[in-house]
Amino acid sequence: MADDLLVRGERRLEWAESHMGVLAAVRDKLIKNGTLEGVRVGMALHVEAKTGMLAVTLAEAGAKVRLASCNPLSTDDSVALALNKSYGIKTYAKKWETTEEYYKNLNAVLDLRPEYVIDDGADLINMLHTERRPQLKEIKGGNEETTTGIIRLRSMAKAGKLEFPVISVNDAQMKYLFDNRYGTGQSTFDGFMNATNLLVAGKNLVVAGYGWCGRGIAMRAKGLGATVIVTEVDPVRAIEAKMDGFQVMPMIEAAKVADVIISATGDRDIITEKHLRVLKDGCVMGNSGHFDNEISKKALEKYGKPKRVRELVDEYKLPGGRKAYLIAEGRLMNLAAGQGHPVEIMDMSFSIQALSLEHLVLHHDELRPGVYNVPPEIDREVAMLKLKALGVKIDELTPAQKKYLSSWQEGT
Amino acid sequence: MADDLLVRGERRLEWAESHMGVLAAVRDKLIKNGTLEGVRVGMALHVEAKTGMLAVTLAEAGAKVRLASCNPLSTDDSVALALNKSYGIKTYAKKWETTEEYYKNLNAVLDLRPEYVIDDGADLINMLHTERRPQLKEIKGGNEETTTGIIRLRSMAKAGKLEFPVISVNDAQMKYLFDNRYGTGQSTFDGFMNATNLLVAGKNLVVAGYGWCGRGIAMRAKGLGATVIVTEVDPVRAIEAKMDGFQVMPMIEAAKVADVIISATGDRDIITEKHLRVLKDGCVMGNSGHFDNEISKKALEKYGKPKRVRELVDEYKLPGGRKAYLIAEGRLMNLAAGQGHPVEIMDMSFSIQALSLEHLVLHHDELRPGVYNVPPEIDREVAMLKLKALGVKIDELTPAQKKYLSSWQEGT
Amino acid sequence: MADDLLVRGERRLEWAESHMGVLAAVRDKLIKNGTLEGVRVGMALHVEAKTGMLAVTLAEAGAKVRLASCNPLSTDDSVALALNKSYGIKTYAKKWETTEEYYKNLNAVLDLRPEYVIDDGADLINMLHTERRPQLKEIKGGNEETTTGIIRLRSMAKAGKLEFPVISVNDAQMKYLFDNRYGTGQSTFDGFMNATNLLVAGKNLVVAGYGWCGRGIAMRAKGLGATVIVTEVDPVRAIEAKMDGFQVMPMIEAAKVADVIISATGDRDIITEKHLRVLKDGCVMGNSGHFDNEISKKALEKYGKPKRVRELVDEYKLPGGRKAYLIAEGRLMNLAAGQGHPVEIMDMSFSIQALSLEHLVLHHDELRPGVYNVPPEIDREVAMLKLKALGVKIDELTPAQKKYLSSWQEGT
Amino acid sequence: MADDLLVRGERRLEWAESHMGVLAAVRDKLIKNGTLEGVRVGMALHVEAKTGMLAVTLAEAGAKVRLASCNPLSTDDSVALALNKSYGIKTYAKKWETTEEYYKNLNAVLDLRPEYVIDDGADLINMLHTERRPQLKEIKGGNEETTTGIIRLRSMAKAGKLEFPVISVNDAQMKYLFDNRYGTGQSTFDGFMNATNLLVAGKNLVVAGYGWCGRGIAMRAKGLGATVIVTEVDPVRAIEAKMDGFQVMPMIEAAKVADVIISATGDRDIITEKHLRVLKDGCVMGNSGHFDNEISKKALEKYGKPKRVRELVDEYKLPGGRKAYLIAEGRLMNLAAGQGHPVEIMDMSFSIQALSLEHLVLHHDELRPGVYNVPPEIDREVAMLKLKALGVKIDELTPAQKKYLSSWQEGT
Repeated sequence: MADDLLVRGERRLEWAESHMGVLAAVRDKLIKNGTLEGVRVGMALHVEAKTGMLAVTLAEAGAKVRLASCNPLSTDDSVALALNKSYGIKTYAKKWETTEEYYKNLNAVLDLRPEYVIDDGADLINMLHTERRPQLKEIKGGNEETTTGIIRLRSMAKAGKLEFPVISVNDAQMKYLFDNRYGTGQSTFDGFMNATNLLVAGKNLVVAGYGWCGRGIAMRAKGLGATVIVTEVDPVRAIEAKMDGFQVMPMIEAAKVADVIISATGDRDIITEKHLRVLKDGCVMGNSGHFDNEISKKALEKYGKPKRVRELVDEYKLPGGRKAYLIAEGRLMNLAAGQGHPVEIMDMSFSIQALSLEHLVLHHDELRPGVYNVPPEIDREVAMLKLKALGVKIDELTPAQKKYLSSWQEGT
Repeated sequence: MADDLLVRGERRLEWAESHMGVLAAVRDKLIKNGTLEGVRVGMALHVEAKTGMLAVTLAEAGAKVRLASCNPLSTDDSVALALNKSYGIKTYAKKWETTEEYYKNLNAVLDLRPEYVIDDGADLINMLHTERRPQLKEIKGGNEETTTGIIRLRSMAKAGKLEFPVISVNDAQMKYLFDNRYGTGQSTFDGFMNATNLLVAGKNLVVAGYGWCGRGIAMRAKGLGATVIVTEVDPVRAIEAKMDGFQVMPMIEAAKVADVIISATGDRDIITEKHLRVLKDGCVMGNSGHFDNEISKKALEKYGKPKRVRELVDEYKLPGGRKAYLIAEGRLMNLAAGQGHPVEIMDMSFSIQALSLEHLVLHHDELRPGVYNVPPEIDREVAMLKLKALGVKIDELTPAQKKYLSSWQEGT
Repeated sequence: MADDLLVRGERRLEWAESHMGVLAAVRDKLIKNGTLEGVRVGMALHVEAKTGMLAVTLAEAGAKVRLASCNPLSTDDSVALALNKSYGIKTYAKKWETTEEYYKNLNAVLDLRPEYVIDDGADLINMLHTERRPQLKEIKGGNEETTTGIIRLRSMAKAGKLEFPVISVNDAQMKYLFDNRYGTGQSTFDGFMNATNLLVAGKNLVVAGYGWCGRGIAMRAKGLGATVIVTEVDPVRAIEAKMDGFQVMPMIEAAKVADVIISATGDRDIITEKHLRVLKDGCVMGNSGHFDNEISKKALEKYGKPKRVRELVDEYKLPGGRKAYLIAEGRLMNLAAGQGHPVEIMDMSFSIQALSLEHLVLHHDELRPGVYNVPPEIDREVAMLKLKALGVKIDELTPAQKKYLSSWQEGT
Repeated sequence: MADDLLVRGERRLEWAESHMGVLAAVRDKLIKNGTLEGVRVGMALHVEAKTGMLAVTLAEAGAKVRLASCNPLSTDDSVALALNKSYGIKTYAKKWETTEEYYKNLNAVLDLRPEYVIDDGADLINMLHTERRPQLKEIKGGNEETTTGIIRLRSMAKAGKLEFPVISVNDAQMKYLFDNRYGTGQSTFDGFMNATNLLVAGKNLVVAGYGWCGRGIAMRAKGLGATVIVTEVDPVRAIEAKMDGFQVMPMIEAAKVADVIISATGDRDIITEKHLRVLKDGCVMGNSGHFDNEISKKALEKYGKPKRVRELVDEYKLPGGRKAYLIAEGRLMNLAAGQGHPVEIMDMSFSIQALSLEHLVLHHDELRPGVYNVPPEIDREVAMLKLKALGVKIDELTPAQKKYLSSWQEGT
């Protein structure tokens, strides 16, 4: 028998909890330390089970938290319900939010008057620097989760506009090496399969961008049997993609042969009108980047309104009788069409989040406004906890080996 | 906005139709031929969108069809509804059928008094040879879809108990080379991700059986980053698995290190009590073989009733405080927890089905009871149609090359 | 210090022996049986260390053997020397044989007046049916090692021209599943790297033919980072190649983008003048099929004599200032430019050879002229010995499982 | 007919030249600039064809160069001969040098009284700081090629002992991303196959170290069908290896199941006596790290002197009748047993070398002693040249895209 919504949400949260062993260890430490006791934290993240467990963790460690969604399509309604009803976490989010609802929810989070913010895409932080400026002085620091948010925040910092310290959780090794690569890689295809039930094997699958996300997607596309084509703007990455066995070409060429296009660049206008003019008939497009501007909906709608042909797929008509399909309105397909990153991935990323928040609480008064890297000792702590959770043992350097690595006398 | 059930089913059927170009070509031919006009066909298949399109295709070609599910958990209720309401195909199936309902539905199909049956797992054919024997004489022939069914039918034939000709659709190249390998490979992980939201990368993933299904699963598990272990009973296949880079060991050893076990053997008792005694804590088990007896639920229930911990996952307690998880009650996870094989795969398999049915209608009176291979010209016809659908061109032998292949004089 | 030739040959033979555990077990059995005592065996195989060990094995089991090369470029001179000097095996072979020398050596083998022949490519068997017909009546049977030879022999048998029984060693599972796939796959790149020192990663590498050899080559090319393109004439294989993630196109298209072309079809005229007209400048071509007619040297020489640019690479000028490179004169590059199949692969293939020879000795009088499969029990014996050599244990069917596989009553 | 040594060397140099298009473009630029005119350069690199072309390139650009080998086993004697006889490059190197000869050759290079040095492993630079100190004041700068050398030089710099500026060519993206990964990955197996003729598929292959070299080796081992085990000391890398599908364990565990061990750590004592005590019988060991101290020969020789069993393999006896095999005396197997990195890889690395040398000549007086990164514009220049050589085109950012990447206002 299918679950009712609340039961489903509770089960998803419990399931996540039982597979987030690193975060559990972090929680125990935070409870013992008491560092987060009474601290007010405003959060804007993708509202699904793993994020829910981060909010629960912080709350269990004594923080007062409110949670909104950082994306109008990425909310798991069952989880939002369970957080509100069963866990007492004030959660402002639902799937298929309008833009108005989206910003109303962010405002509700800021109404908590947080001292710290945890953001994903930097919309919350941007609001604090614009319509909610009066609250700025109450903010002691923030964490930012994703590449796109970091690009925005570095631009702000460079322009002297960022007014509190922000830790770039995204740049922790234990985050970007795993979340962006293995996380996005798998969850993009969770979303693709769920949305389309189409075969990956044998498809010409174009990945736009060969950053950490893009190479995760390309790796998994290959692993599922696709013929992968990569588009890039960076020459070094382009050569890497070539050496990894992928075809590399400009998008205007790739579009002509693409059965599937997935964008993961963090930039806008990856697919525009000029690409649509040559697009292969039947091409299925989706986006795994943060914002829904990588594949231009404005360009797609030039030829008419879309028709919904599956729960999460829209069909657009193109000149010459061709059709194009867009997954989840071009919003990040791993969350809007799938269940988001696998639990174990978020276990690592959110452990970095929790420990970075602790770091801000302990050290915010030593930090000037700006974007900061996660302290290396947090990276290492999470890595060691994860190895333990995996049950994997590794070697240790002997004193002789350590000495050798710092010597230069011994030669051939 | 989420779809209502009927709209969802209609969309899934239309989506399937638009990606089944081979079957469309076959349909056009059958309509033109008129071979199936008025023919009564009883079908027991997994009731989801692609199967729906096979039923619709046969109906459009003039056949009278009824459809039941061949598995209590594999029905897509939205599709069953749409078939009944919008396509006029009598469909007897729902998800989570009891055993009683399951057989009631098969009986409803047989009440059509079919001349031909299309079966998957051979339950329908078995009923015709037991409780529905009086109808046997009306049956002119049948198709069987899957390995498990063929194993059963060959046993019957060997024992002289099979009373009409059955075409082993499963043994067509265009079926087993693709459906069992690329189809099961992808859809098993569609089911796995959907049911668990767990990471595949870095897991010790045990695949039981290295037949076409097993090697599809192993290939995709590797492609998703798992550390793959294969168990086998056949020495040649075991060496192949080893040469393909996988670890090979008996299940009793594999169970001790398994994070995930997926069975695809077509045989019973792959996981029994002795394996549970040593099973790694937290192991997630699922089955992609036809019947739900590969992982013994009886053995699992010895230590207590399961607790549902996610929509499609049950938790079982094991001695020593260990836990085991079972996906979709041990029924084939690609259908019970995912959306079944990708559309393009079933396009090929069901084109074989439709053409094999036509072959039976045209030639049943020349065939004695027994299990028959699909005629090679059907295989080739489907392959050529598929190449065309893919837009792929290939080489042709020149007369000189053909002659060379049939000569022996030319040496070094 | 580099070895002298004899020492090198002895070492290579000893090294091969120490890694051919299956053949050693077979030898012990043959010695014990005495079946081969005094039997005369004429052999034409690639003369290198593993083949040497087969000859030595048969000799140790009591047979009288002579060995010639089955290819003018595939001989390892150090091994030929050591076989003659240190092992007392009469060996007629050297690298870079002229055609005249090649046939002289085959004649020397036939001068032994063999009762049995072990052939590779069927030149020896062809000679027995033409210029050496008088000896035909003395021949009790033969083994044939390779696809090309089998194609020739089946043509002869079909035309009623084959006058003794030949066992198709090539069609044993323990041969073609491993030798043709993993053997050719690895050794082709041993030859490629040795001959060219070029990078495989990032190259457009075209594999002609997707039989067992071709898919081995394609698999390894992918594993080394190439962008692989497959050409085929069979539609089912073409779709398989596509689903395996490779590009598929006619050779005339592939030649335009090929950095490397490797042929493995068993047919002639894979690269002809029409392909050379469009060939990408700098393309490196090599052949892993049995005969040197897959890449037409006649077509290449149309534009002038080649220039040797590396020990095993010839440069040909093409119209428009383009250049083409040919490895090892188009003879099978894994042997002519590399060391042939890995030792462990030949351990399996040659164990099949030795046991098939024993089978012929025991049963030749029951066999009419024709091509015969290797008896399944020999396949299984070699598989079990190989598993033992690998130290791999596998599962065994329980009586309940066996019974289940032969039953049909148990359903859903 | 086999080549004579001089012809072979000439051909190898010409072949390399014809596949080093990036270096050719750099040469043309340097000749035009005249920057290197009359400059004295001492080089210690692996003396084979690609290195030879770097020396020839610098000479053609007007430099006075001398070349010695940076490793006693890595010289290609045919190339050394051709450089001396046909190209007029003073080259001091031969294969199988004794330690005495090795240092004599380095001294011969320093007798040129170079202003600049190009080093690989830092032996030359070390000599300048010890027995050849008087020349130190004449040195204006140096390049260092490899990880091991950089580790030594950074230690020296940290201790205030490095007395001139050195550019870490190794840390250029166009070097370490390609040379260390795709170069070492392929050439290690060139060496392995050449030395052993053993099968990679199905072997338990242990890679020590998951740096850029180690992951290249692991990637190719997987691509060739091995079951790969990784050992590491860094927890983050260990988790990456795990997520890439490899088994991860301490070497003391890995040694028990290893069929092959390949070290690539840059540290000593990877295999020591304690590992030998548990080593699997028949294990083949090789090293792809710079120095021959990763696998302890002292430990191996404890049980007796080795016996040469193949041209490049020594057999050691271990307690309990076990045997261990060591490739190329534990010196870097890709050069000592193979032909070194593929030509196209060194084309990129040596273009970085040549341009870095030019940078030193132009800017040495602005640089204080220390280790410097390659200027990013050199990396980009080489990348663009390489893309051109590959015939690959990529996208360019539009002004709107550039602006977007530096903005922060645009949100959800």
